[in-house]
Amino acid sequence: MELNRDKALEFVKPYLKQKRYEHTIRVTDQAVELAERFGADVWKTEIAAALHDYAKYKPLDEMKRWILEDRRLPKDLLDYHHELWHGPVGALMLEREIGLDDKEVKSAIQCHTTGKKHMTVLDKVVFLADYIEPGRDFPGVEVARDKSKESLDDACATALKNTIHFLVDKERTVYPDTFHAFNDLI
Amino acid sequence: MELNRDKALEFVKPYLKQKRYEHTIRVTDQAVELAERFGADVWKTEIAAALHDYAKYKPLDEMKRWILEDRRLPKDLLDYHHELWHGPVGALMLEREIGLDDKEVKSAIQCHTTGKKHMTVLDKVVFLADYIEPGRDFPGVEVARDKSKESLDDACATALKNTIHFLVDKERTVYPDTFHAFNDLI
Repeated sequence: MELNRDKALEFVKPYLKQKRYEHTIRVTDQAVELAERFGADVWKTEIAAALHDYAKYKPLDEMKRWILEDRRLPKDLLDYHHELWHGPVGALMLEREIGLDDKEVKSAIQCHTTGKKHMTVLDKVVFLADYIEPGRDFPGVEVARDKSKESLDDACATALKNTIHFLVDKERTVYPDTFHAFNDLI
Repeated sequence: MELNRDKALEFVKPYLKQKRYEHTIRVTDQAVELAERFGADVWKTEIAAALHDYAKYKPLDEMKRWILEDRRLPKDLLDYHHELWHGPVGALMLEREIGLDDKEVKSAIQCHTTGKKHMTVLDKVVFLADYIEPGRDFPGVEVARDKSKESLDDACATALKNTIHFLVDKERTVYPDTFHAFNDLI
């Protein structure tokens, strides 16, 4: 399948709840806007954004098996909230299931929830689009939106900062990639 | 030198400013109180608390050389604020200079600023005493003090939470051991 925006969206639609699919479309539009502003490849951006939540509703047992069996997946994911699994597992499922072999696209899908050290422009664009798309109303999202007009790094740092505050406040663990991303950006 | 509380305090005195020395005495008293409450070895607690800030005013160049040259010191310390160096470097300086060879005491000195994964009761007692001693007035320190009456882990988690909020707010990097300590405790 030669992917493009519409084919990728059509592919993920049956795996997502309606609201999640609408979120996916908004993320894709938002990501393209950011890609044009900050110079990421628009084709890769569309594919990564359209596919980013592919594994969102996969059964937890199935994702757990992937984590245990694919040596590219860090085992410590299992020590953290299962909400963090769908990015890394989804990227590898897509590789097997539809032959997604673009490394940069897989990377952006993989780290879209947590961020990571040394993110590429594409990684940042998808991560940020997922955070600021118009349907989001996290506390502080407006600050990240404002910053996204000027600086991709500042906007991502704000998103990570808000996320860390939120998690620490709720006494939830913070996945190491999230603070590595934060430390890296500031 | 067979160390005890008074000898350890006498030893560090000339290396510390007067205010820092007074802080050290308060940390030592506070740590003993916690050790008695939560069951850490009182002798080790006194020694670790009295010596914890030994390297606080060592020249940065000198600490940098220790980090570069002693393979037990993680090189990534150099990527973070030099305020984090005096614990790990101090523990090894004390080992060489006064033959401090107790692993648990060295560990408590090493991690007193940042915390770390799998802290012992002694590590936690010294870390917490440094945070809540009566001279401290960080925002939120009262919450940690209250919790320290009941639970060492809850009080340490509160101290780490406050520290992470503070650093992230100021857009300062957070040393990974601090997140690991937080994740570990909650």
